[in-house]
Amino acid sequence: MGRRFDTISFLSDLGLVDESVGVVKAIVRDLAPHATVIDLTHQVPRFDVRAGSLALARSIGYVPSGVVMAVVDSGRRRPIAIEVAGGEGVLIGPDNGLLPSAVAMAGGAERCVVLSSVQHQLVSAGLVLSARDVFAPAAAHLCNGADIAELGEPVDPDSLLPGVVPLPREAADGGVHAEVLWVDHFGNCQLNVGLDDVAPWGVHDGQQVQVVAGEVNRVARRAPHGGVLGAGTVGLVVDAFGLLALTLDRRSAADELMLSPTDQVTLGPLVEHTPAPASPVAMRPRR
Amino acid sequence: MGRRFDTISFLSDLGLVDESVGVVKAIVRDLAPHATVIDLTHQVPRFDVRAGSLALARSIGYVPSGVVMAVVDSGRRRPIAIEVAGGEGVLIGPDNGLLPSAVAMAGGAERCVVLSSVQHQLVSAGLVLSARDVFAPAAAHLCNGADIAELGEPVDPDSLLPGVVPLPREAADGGVHAEVLWVDHFGNCQLNVGLDDVAPWGVHDGQQVQVVAGEVNRVARRAPHGGVLGAGTVGLVVDAFGLLALTLDRRSAADELMLSPTDQVTLGPLVEHTPAPASPVAMRPRR
Amino acid sequence: MGRRFDTISFLSDLGLVDESVGVVKAIVRDLAPHATVIDLTHQVPRFDVRAGSLALARSIGYVPSGVVMAVVDSGRRRPIAIEVAGGEGVLIGPDNGLLPSAVAMAGGAERCVVLSSVQHQLVSAGLVLSARDVFAPAAAHLCNGADIAELGEPVDPDSLLPGVVPLPREAADGGVHAEVLWVDHFGNCQLNVGLDDVAPWGVHDGQQVQVVAGEVNRVARRAPHGGVLGAGTVGLVVDAFGLLALTLDRRSAADELMLSPTDQVTLGPLVEHTPAPASPVAMRPRR
Repeated sequence: MGRRFDTISFLSDLGLVDESVGVVKAIVRDLAPHATVIDLTHQVPRFDVRAGSLALARSIGYVPSGVVMAVVDSGRRRPIAIEVAGGEGVLIGPDNGLLPSAVAMAGGAERCVVLSSVQHQLVSAGLVLSARDVFAPAAAHLCNGADIAELGEPVDPDSLLPGVVPLPREAADGGVHAEVLWVDHFGNCQLNVGLDDVAPWGVHDGQQVQVVAGEVNRVARRAPHGGVLGAGTVGLVVDAFGLLALTLDRRSAADELMLSPTDQVTLGPLVEHTPAPASPVAMRPRR
Repeated sequence: MGRRFDTISFLSDLGLVDESVGVVKAIVRDLAPHATVIDLTHQVPRFDVRAGSLALARSIGYVPSGVVMAVVDSGRRRPIAIEVAGGEGVLIGPDNGLLPSAVAMAGGAERCVVLSSVQHQLVSAGLVLSARDVFAPAAAHLCNGADIAELGEPVDPDSLLPGVVPLPREAADGGVHAEVLWVDHFGNCQLNVGLDDVAPWGVHDGQQVQVVAGEVNRVARRAPHGGVLGAGTVGLVVDAFGLLALTLDRRSAADELMLSPTDQVTLGPLVEHTPAPASPVAMRPRR
Repeated sequence: MGRRFDTISFLSDLGLVDESVGVVKAIVRDLAPHATVIDLTHQVPRFDVRAGSLALARSIGYVPSGVVMAVVDSGRRRPIAIEVAGGEGVLIGPDNGLLPSAVAMAGGAERCVVLSSVQHQLVSAGLVLSARDVFAPAAAHLCNGADIAELGEPVDPDSLLPGVVPLPREAADGGVHAEVLWVDHFGNCQLNVGLDDVAPWGVHDGQQVQVVAGEVNRVARRAPHGGVLGAGTVGLVVDAFGLLALTLDRRSAADELMLSPTDQVTLGPLVEHTPAPASPVAMRPRR
């Protein structure tokens, strides 16, 4: 057994307030001292498989070859390992829909196993903590050269719980019903639509777009980035992941539009005679 | 002087909001570039030696051989280093009760010194920041092969401030007065009692237990883990550290029972005719 | 091209809630696997160049030789790299005033370039994320031996946006108008004055000093550190960076005095007959 991998990219909902993440890294250090752990994030909201899955999908194109360990709402479904990219990478995590999007982006599942080998696990004094007792030692053993097949029983990739990707729907007036996938640290609201989805009614820079989200009815302007928008103008940009996002210059669009992940947003061509919306944008003369 | 250790496990109340932790790691990198720092946690509540001591005790069985640096409410008492496990590890931190529990779990103190050697410290422009000026360079020097005796004057381990471990007490009705040791990231409430402490009145799965904590009077059910509990049912489980913990399925037991660390909780055999407690569990027909 | 640097010290306003920081470290790991990233802090308040600049200045004396990557409110001004200390270090970040204080403390700028070489950048699917697409690969290329001149066009250091350092001003009564530079994790309030600035009216330990900040009018006592102060007594100490700071023993001086960074504070000699200030200190008999 040689050193197969030397990097473990680690994402979880374990938080940083207690020592849970630190203990996982201590175990890896103990079992596979040559391996480096890259913390993607540990502040996925508790139990939020959807948010974790999206964060992992946004990251997967940037992580080095090696192990990807993702732990969100684990312990309720069986722990699995999925080999991808001809063995260049192995994703480990619970079989709860957390991994499939990232696996798909990495080219699809090759071999899969359930992490059932108890000799590759730690013994708990009580409840099994899957991150500590199952995933950390599995990641370390993979780095030490263990083949995925040593870690447990093979399982058919098609039997795994699929991920859920929300799809946009056409709206009556030619618009599109979208969903907020993610609100980033700066309050930008990433939607589940790309430029193609709004192509029918126009996509050129400067174009105005009607944005309806719950009680909020606003006009947004297509722009290359938030920096060209005036104060208070909502922008619709192609974000750093190729998706449309609502943004404000140096302010939180999520706060301004009262948006959170999973909220529904309808984008559509500008309605010329919108009845006075409570919006600072509409208060100005139209250009 | 060879390379004695290559891992420093680091726990503190320094937080992650400013650069304090980063500067400690920069100093270690500068002085002992071969050493890796494992962050256990830096969000121990400010000055909370008890919480830090417990987090360290939960971690110590998992950290690799090397240096353990613990910094909570430091700077008020002398900085010390304690050798354990035949020299396999050295714990450094303030002599304020933070280290003793972990030291005991590592087999007890062997040699101890006060970190008094100024040539192993950094010079501050003003106040001494013990993490930056004393502990970081001490950890680095230990990794570089310094013997603990070089770092300062020997001190008798028996003269160190002991840790405080809250013990459970028997309650009048055969129950036990317990204390909340820790509330984890998911709201599980770890108590300072194990199964043995409740053995007299029963411990089998499914058994109901009376839980009284301040104004809260609830029935909890002994269960192997939270996943088998119905919604809203409080569970009493043996947690991942071998202690009893109050839990709810995917919700915070701490929020539900209004519990925080150091709160007192009385566990006892079920009182059959509890006078209508303000509890959603009691509102339902008993099974 | 050899391995020029092996450490990247990284400070940002990217937060730890999402995967932005993790992706930067994944990219560095992928491109320059031998390099170690030291996280100084990622919780600089969003867009707060002043706070980031001060945190970087407090850190710079402790970071190892190598790359310093600072990313606060980036993407609005051109990305730059500044060589310092005869090539011992390179600071990279936006040309927005974030870097100059640290550069000055490192001995001043030597060669500077704008990070304009697209072959040293990543290609985004949309918006350029400067941390991910520009700074992370630049840092990795520097660690891999790239010369700063390969990364883009030279630029005159004098053309860069200077940092802003708030200077204290003399007050009418011999006192000094100071500014809160920083509130640390424990609530200590660092001011932009040193002992020299208050020398005219006395600096000896135990001396009382009048502190006026907005509505707050308090007496502080010069002390070597907070530990010697009685409960509720505000102390004026020389902090760990050589600057005067307001402190309380185990409590937050910022909370007590309602101070935040950029707030103005006037220090002056004690006014003997202060008209009843709303201060618990003044309620006691004077010593």
